[in-house]
Amino acid sequence: MAVTIVDFLQANAFSGGHDSLRFIISRANSSNAHSKLVRAGFLRQAHSGIFHMLPLGQRVQSKLELLIDKHMAKLNASKLALSSISSEELWRKSGRLNSSASELFHLLDRKEVAYLLSPTHEEEITSLVASTVRSYKELPIRLYQISRKYRDELRPRHGVLRSREFLMKDLYTFDYSEEQALATYHEVRQVYARLFDELKIPYLIAEADSGDMGGSLSHEFHFPTSVGEDHIISCMSCNYIANEEMAESLGCKDILPTDSDPGYGQVKVWRGISQDRNTLINAWYPSTPIEDKMISLEPEINIHAIKTLVPDLDTTLDNPVSIWVEAAAQRSKETQLINLVDSRLPKSFARQLLAHDTVLPVWPAAVAASDQDHLVSVLSVDSTNQSLNLLRIRDGDSCSHCVDGRLKVQRAIELGHTFHLGTRYSAPLKAVVSVPIKHLQHNSALSTGELRNPESTHSCTVPMQMGCHGIGVSRMIGAVADTLADEKGLNWPRVMAPYEVVVVPGHGLAAESLEVYDTLADRSLLLNVAGSPNIDVVLDDRGLSFVWKLQDADLVGYPVVVIVGKSWKVARMCEVQCRRLKIREDVPLDGVLEFVRSLLVQL
Amino acid sequence: MAVTIVDFLQANAFSGGHDSLRFIISRANSSNAHSKLVRAGFLRQAHSGIFHMLPLGQRVQSKLELLIDKHMAKLNASKLALSSISSEELWRKSGRLNSSASELFHLLDRKEVAYLLSPTHEEEITSLVASTVRSYKELPIRLYQISRKYRDELRPRHGVLRSREFLMKDLYTFDYSEEQALATYHEVRQVYARLFDELKIPYLIAEADSGDMGGSLSHEFHFPTSVGEDHIISCMSCNYIANEEMAESLGCKDILPTDSDPGYGQVKVWRGISQDRNTLINAWYPSTPIEDKMISLEPEINIHAIKTLVPDLDTTLDNPVSIWVEAAAQRSKETQLINLVDSRLPKSFARQLLAHDTVLPVWPAAVAASDQDHLVSVLSVDSTNQSLNLLRIRDGDSCSHCVDGRLKVQRAIELGHTFHLGTRYSAPLKAVVSVPIKHLQHNSALSTGELRNPESTHSCTVPMQMGCHGIGVSRMIGAVADTLADEKGLNWPRVMAPYEVVVVPGHGLAAESLEVYDTLADRSLLLNVAGSPNIDVVLDDRGLSFVWKLQDADLVGYPVVVIVGKSWKVARMCEVQCRRLKIREDVPLDGVLEFVRSLLVQL
Repeated sequence: MAVTIVDFLQANAFSGGHDSLRFIISRANSSNAHSKLVRAGFLRQAHSGIFHMLPLGQRVQSKLELLIDKHMAKLNASKLALSSISSEELWRKSGRLNSSASELFHLLDRKEVAYLLSPTHEEEITSLVASTVRSYKELPIRLYQISRKYRDELRPRHGVLRSREFLMKDLYTFDYSEEQALATYHEVRQVYARLFDELKIPYLIAEADSGDMGGSLSHEFHFPTSVGEDHIISCMSCNYIANEEMAESLGCKDILPTDSDPGYGQVKVWRGISQDRNTLINAWYPSTPIEDKMISLEPEINIHAIKTLVPDLDTTLDNPVSIWVEAAAQRSKETQLINLVDSRLPKSFARQLLAHDTVLPVWPAAVAASDQDHLVSVLSVDSTNQSLNLLRIRDGDSCSHCVDGRLKVQRAIELGHTFHLGTRYSAPLKAVVSVPIKHLQHNSALSTGELRNPESTHSCTVPMQMGCHGIGVSRMIGAVADTLADEKGLNWPRVMAPYEVVVVPGHGLAAESLEVYDTLADRSLLLNVAGSPNIDVVLDDRGLSFVWKLQDADLVGYPVVVIVGKSWKVARMCEVQCRRLKIREDVPLDGVLEFVRSLLVQL
Repeated sequence: MAVTIVDFLQANAFSGGHDSLRFIISRANSSNAHSKLVRAGFLRQAHSGIFHMLPLGQRVQSKLELLIDKHMAKLNASKLALSSISSEELWRKSGRLNSSASELFHLLDRKEVAYLLSPTHEEEITSLVASTVRSYKELPIRLYQISRKYRDELRPRHGVLRSREFLMKDLYTFDYSEEQALATYHEVRQVYARLFDELKIPYLIAEADSGDMGGSLSHEFHFPTSVGEDHIISCMSCNYIANEEMAESLGCKDILPTDSDPGYGQVKVWRGISQDRNTLINAWYPSTPIEDKMISLEPEINIHAIKTLVPDLDTTLDNPVSIWVEAAAQRSKETQLINLVDSRLPKSFARQLLAHDTVLPVWPAAVAASDQDHLVSVLSVDSTNQSLNLLRIRDGDSCSHCVDGRLKVQRAIELGHTFHLGTRYSAPLKAVVSVPIKHLQHNSALSTGELRNPESTHSCTVPMQMGCHGIGVSRMIGAVADTLADEKGLNWPRVMAPYEVVVVPGHGLAAESLEVYDTLADRSLLLNVAGSPNIDVVLDDRGLSFVWKLQDADLVGYPVVVIVGKSWKVARMCEVQCRRLKIREDVPLDGVLEFVRSLLVQL
């Protein structure tokens, strides 16, 4: 019980020494969570989009790492540490060097060899496993690391939510058949859900697009937050939830009432061009008042939906119309025009378009009237008779997965991502294993032609089926801060708090506060009561005023604050505060440990 | 007691999952420790001088980090995590950008801002502390991190002993007076010694030169090892110990016996030039048979000793003689020749030199005989009448710190370094605090003129007194491996072992081995016997042969190996092996925990 605490600034080995810098930070008023993290001394910007984690932030980060380690152990995943420096040569092999070029930090060594700072480690881990694993008997393999990653963001912002140097957990899985890889995938998804459950913060699991990462199955784990840069679409009736790129909708069922030409005010057109530059696409959609102000500055049209209908759409060109008009003027090429009509426009509108019986500009202004006869105008209607929704999904749109469900759009921030990669990396980097054919008889590898180099009639060589699964550790700190902060300060879930409890001593109550601290920190209880977790408590014995310390405790966001003040002087009671649970209660010394424990299990 | 271990490869949360890659590595024969680390699956080269830590290596690294954390807590130091990316601008301010340029990895971001990968963090931490600390009351501050550092080595070698990406612990201390900073320095040095004590490997603490780091007081912590690149000089009689740059010696007292001209065979000359290129230096020294083969390829001359006598010596030029001859030919310049004579040459030799009464080439061959008269030849003798030792210190040279002591030269590898930096960084980066003058009355800051901007008659502003203190974490892994490896494999001190004990099951003894494992891993004992550390044990339940596993256990270097084999079948005894303590003993199940503990405390 003899814990000597010389000074909270320096603290001691037991309570942890965390506080050399924090207290001098000025109290400029600021509302967002990032400035609270800076003011409270969790982190500090070093360079644009690059941060130092100060002692308080380092403690939060360590706790998050421990939480991740615990759940990775449940997956029987082994921890390693891959180099942060990778080579351009390796990334050229995987085909990602060019596609990711602008976001990579490149560096040359003194021999002019070209390296890069890895934003993610698919290439390195695949190359490592390819060089060591030969047989299907050595699989499954599950390897993860928690390490710094680098991305030269065009616009780093919101502190650690979008930074250029950040900590990420990346897990890589290797199986020899797609069935097993998919089973691994679902196991990881479940463990991710249990990990997120421990934070006790609402989260969304959304179907996602694999994008540049490759692969075919992907989910994102999000916190809903106003500073998020993703839009998550969820149904208010069924379980459907997806990110915007993947989301499907029947659109708004409110069709424009008139059967006559809807005219300029009610219809808008968006024009695009095909990759071969011969086809112009007109996407006709209803002009509706923008209700969701949050997305008002972004395009109304859903490019993903148009791509589904016109797969060779080229979205990289700024001036599709003039390029197509130029092609059409040559007449030698088979230029054409495709009209897509959103289902919310009146059915008669499509007929009017084909007959050119509309005041709306079917042809771009630059196409001379004399040329229009030579050009083919096609109306694309959905062959399956489903309705076309060309607009980005908005609150109130109809769900395509249930009968009457309406969709909700939420801003959110992505914190975790699971990918089934298949052979996206194992094939080009030749990460293969030998498998007996009998193990593959029902395997997709045989049918999809991935089977290569049959070695004999008994076994063959197949590329490994991979998965990769990330959690943004730095970003999680920013997102949790943002989600739980209130006007008084930050608020941490128990598992991520720098300390679970702070003891704040009133004036002249130093010895009594130490007694309270010792009661809460008592390790002998742990030894007798197996399974009962110890409390991570700190004593604020800095030479600062009582009021300052109380405000600071709120700003830092300790889950529980124990005050040895007025109530102690009157009745030897501790005042236990919990802002999140809205609790403020006087508790006698011999009941304080149990009471604090009862609060912590809810946080 | 119900620990289910499905497979050692995947292991479980309790025993830790470490073994997905290791076992397939081929058994190529190799003698050095680095290849053993690679063969046993601790690490793998990714690129030249850049390594991945595999699961076994990651466990060793984590344990070393825990050991460091424990000792840093004794110093009341707080842990943080500074960014790996620093800016050229900041390094320009400190004056290190140019001096370290060739070893820095430089990178430009997309806006062409010049960054670098930090090899060490004096600039960043000084800048951080400068921006937050204002008053002497906020000091002392002690901050450390364990993070990846970068150095673009000209010749990366010996695996993690000299790599380009490596893990380092760096502690920075801030005080407001030199007295306090020196007290901090000595406190750190003592804690370093206790940390090294825990490894139970002999080490050397040597006086060292601060070099490019700046500052005036410095010690190095070394392991003696044949692959080391430093030479540590220690006296076999007194406590004197220093690295080669700092070491002093009276030289070998064996003076050449003859008083006549010693002639070509017995005398050698080394020639150097001054920075103004007007002075040629002849250093005459006895030609002795090279006994120490380890250093036979390196220069015999002690450049540091010559620099002490000729401070403006230019060591960067390849052809000093021709440059000086050119200067001498112009005659307009005041060219001169200085002769330095090692004390081991006969006293008459110096006289012979001045009189040109020697067959030895006093002038370089390129100086025409007719010119020699115009040139000044000077003999430099030591004014204090001390003997001159121009040779690198060798085994058997005389100690300058005791009467009859002889020196010993050991190859060693530097693992820790403590520096008292003074104001080397705080002055240029303006890390200053306000201090009441009464606290500085006996302070060197007043006398050395560091006192700046007196604010009033009561207080003034002084640059903080800093210290920096490193431990090479990656390098420690390589050095420990090298120091303790034998022909059978690696050998780890208990505090760094990936697991302290491995249980190897004989054929058909899976259930019995699990019982042994459970006995050793029993956590309930920990709960009742406070302070008794738990044993970190792993069960090798892989599907490989018994003999293979025994060899693998030796290669990996677990401190203790417990075999459930022949003795179990005969008498239900475990065979406990410890290669380092040369122990192989049969122990009954109910005594195995105590016996293993008794071995571990010695390791």
